[in-house]
Amino acid sequence: MKLIRFGSKGNEKPGIIDDKNIRRDASHLFKDWNNEFFEQGGLEKLKAVEDISLLPVVDDEERWAAPVARPGKAICIGLNYSDHAEETGAVIPKEPIVFMKAANTVVGPYDNILIPRNSKKTDWEVELAVIIKKEARYLQSADDAKGYIAGYAVVNDVSEREFQIERGGQWTKGKSCDNFSPLGPYLLTADEIKDPQNLWMKLSVNGVQMQNGSSSKMIFDVYYVVHYLSQFMTLEAGDIILTGTPPGVALGMKEPQYLKEGDVVELSIEQLGTQKQTCVNA
Amino acid sequence: MKLIRFGSKGNEKPGIIDDKNIRRDASHLFKDWNNEFFEQGGLEKLKAVEDISLLPVVDDEERWAAPVARPGKAICIGLNYSDHAEETGAVIPKEPIVFMKAANTVVGPYDNILIPRNSKKTDWEVELAVIIKKEARYLQSADDAKGYIAGYAVVNDVSEREFQIERGGQWTKGKSCDNFSPLGPYLLTADEIKDPQNLWMKLSVNGVQMQNGSSSKMIFDVYYVVHYLSQFMTLEAGDIILTGTPPGVALGMKEPQYLKEGDVVELSIEQLGTQKQTCVNA
Repeated sequence: MKLIRFGSKGNEKPGIIDDKNIRRDASHLFKDWNNEFFEQGGLEKLKAVEDISLLPVVDDEERWAAPVARPGKAICIGLNYSDHAEETGAVIPKEPIVFMKAANTVVGPYDNILIPRNSKKTDWEVELAVIIKKEARYLQSADDAKGYIAGYAVVNDVSEREFQIERGGQWTKGKSCDNFSPLGPYLLTADEIKDPQNLWMKLSVNGVQMQNGSSSKMIFDVYYVVHYLSQFMTLEAGDIILTGTPPGVALGMKEPQYLKEGDVVELSIEQLGTQKQTCVNA
Repeated sequence: MKLIRFGSKGNEKPGIIDDKNIRRDASHLFKDWNNEFFEQGGLEKLKAVEDISLLPVVDDEERWAAPVARPGKAICIGLNYSDHAEETGAVIPKEPIVFMKAANTVVGPYDNILIPRNSKKTDWEVELAVIIKKEARYLQSADDAKGYIAGYAVVNDVSEREFQIERGGQWTKGKSCDNFSPLGPYLLTADEIKDPQNLWMKLSVNGVQMQNGSSSKMIFDVYYVVHYLSQFMTLEAGDIILTGTPPGVALGMKEPQYLKEGDVVELSIEQLGTQKQTCVNA
C-alpha cells in the first residue's frame, strides 16, 4: 500500500495511491499518518478498508506533502555505503555512525530545496528512508527489527558541507537547514518490499546523472540499523531513519559542483518513486 | 513567572508556581505549555490572568513533569564553558559545537536517571536550558535573540561517554538514551532573569559536590547561541537549547567515578531551583 499526504504546509491531509495510480483522500477515516496512527495499529485498519475506490479523488493541483506527519526524530546513518565511504576518503566505520537532523527539515518531495544563506557547498544525497511502525527499545536482534518497520520512502538528505565539516565539531549544523529532507512521494508499506537491500537508487542534477547505486552496498543493513539504534534510544512510531547514501555526491568530486539557484535535482529509488526539487536561495 | 507541568507520564497538565510557592493547576485555562502556547502569545495571556490565587492547588503527591511539553528539538552546545573545555583536554572551540539529543529524552526533574544497558560510563552535566518563545530564522544579531526566549530551566544533560566518544563518529548515541534530559522543576520566564550570564550552578552525587560553576564562563553566551543557531536551522517555539556544562563531570576526572544504580544526583542553578534523580538500571 502507498501512503501519501497532500495539501498546503500546515494543512496536510492523509491519503493513499490506489492500484490505478490515483491519489485518494483518506482524511474522513484517519486523522493523519502520525505517531498515534502507526502505534495504534493504523496500518492494519487502513488495509481493512473495504473499497478504497470509493475514497474521494485528490485534485491534481494539490501539493504533494511528506507522506508521514512530522516525525519525533530524524536519525541519520553516516557513511553507510562502502562505495560512498571510499569516495569521501573515510575509513569504513566499525559501527554505525549516528547523528540527527532537525525534524522540521522534512518537506514534500517536490518542494524547493532552499540554499541556505551564506552557503557555498549545498549537496545532495539520495537515501532510503525507513519509517518506524511501533516503539522499539532494546530489540533482541536484527531479525526482530522487521516487525518495527512501517515502510520505506525516498529521501534527499540535503547537506551543507561547509556547515557540516568546516565550521567546528558535529555534523548537525550542515544537515538541519530548512527543507533539507524532502520525503516521498509516498511511503510504501514494508510488506511490499521483498528485499530492502536490493533496490537501485539514482539521482541527477539538471538531467546529468550523479548518483547510481544500490542499497546492496549498505555496510549496516536496514534491520541491523533499527536493532542497533534501539540499544541507544527509544525509537517511536513515525520516526524516520535516513540510512546513508551511495557514491556520487558533490563532496566526493575532484572539482565539486555544489547546488546553486535554479538547479533541478531528481531522485528515485526502485519501487519508491521519484522526487524532483528546484533549488532556490533562502 | 514560574511554569510547571504535573501528572503522570502521558497525562501531564500545565500549571504555575505562585508567590507563596504553591503549585496551581492552569489546565482549565490552557491546554499545555507547548509550541502553540508559546507561538500564539500564550505567555502574555498567562500573565494577564487576574487572580492566580483562584487556580486549583495541585496535590503534593502529583509528579513533577518537565515544565514544557515535548520539544520539537533538543539542541546541545558542546564544550561551551572555557573551564570545562580545559578539563576534558579539548581545544576552545572557535564556533559553537552543535549536536542534538533525541527529544524523547526530556523527563521530569525528579524522575529516575536510567543507566542504559551495557553502559559503563554514564555521566552528569548540569546545564542552563533555554526555551524558545517564537520561531527564529536568520536573526540579525545576538541582541535580537532576546525577544525569542521564553525562559530558562535547569537541565541535566546526562551522557554515556563510551557511547558518545568510543563507539564511532558523532555524539548523539551517548546523549539520546531514555530519561537523559531531566528538565525543571520549573521554567522561569525570561523577564525574571536579570543576566543569564551570571548564574551559579552546581551538582552533587551522593551529597558530594562535583560541579560548581557559573554561566559567566560560557564561551558563547545565550543570546549569541540563539542567534548563531538561527543561521543554520529554524528554531521553533518550545524548542530547548542545552547550553553546555561547567567543569566537574566524571569524564574530566583522573579516575572517573561514573554513575551506578542507587546513586543520587542533585543539581541546582541560581533562581531556577533544584532537581534530584536516583539512578536505576534500564
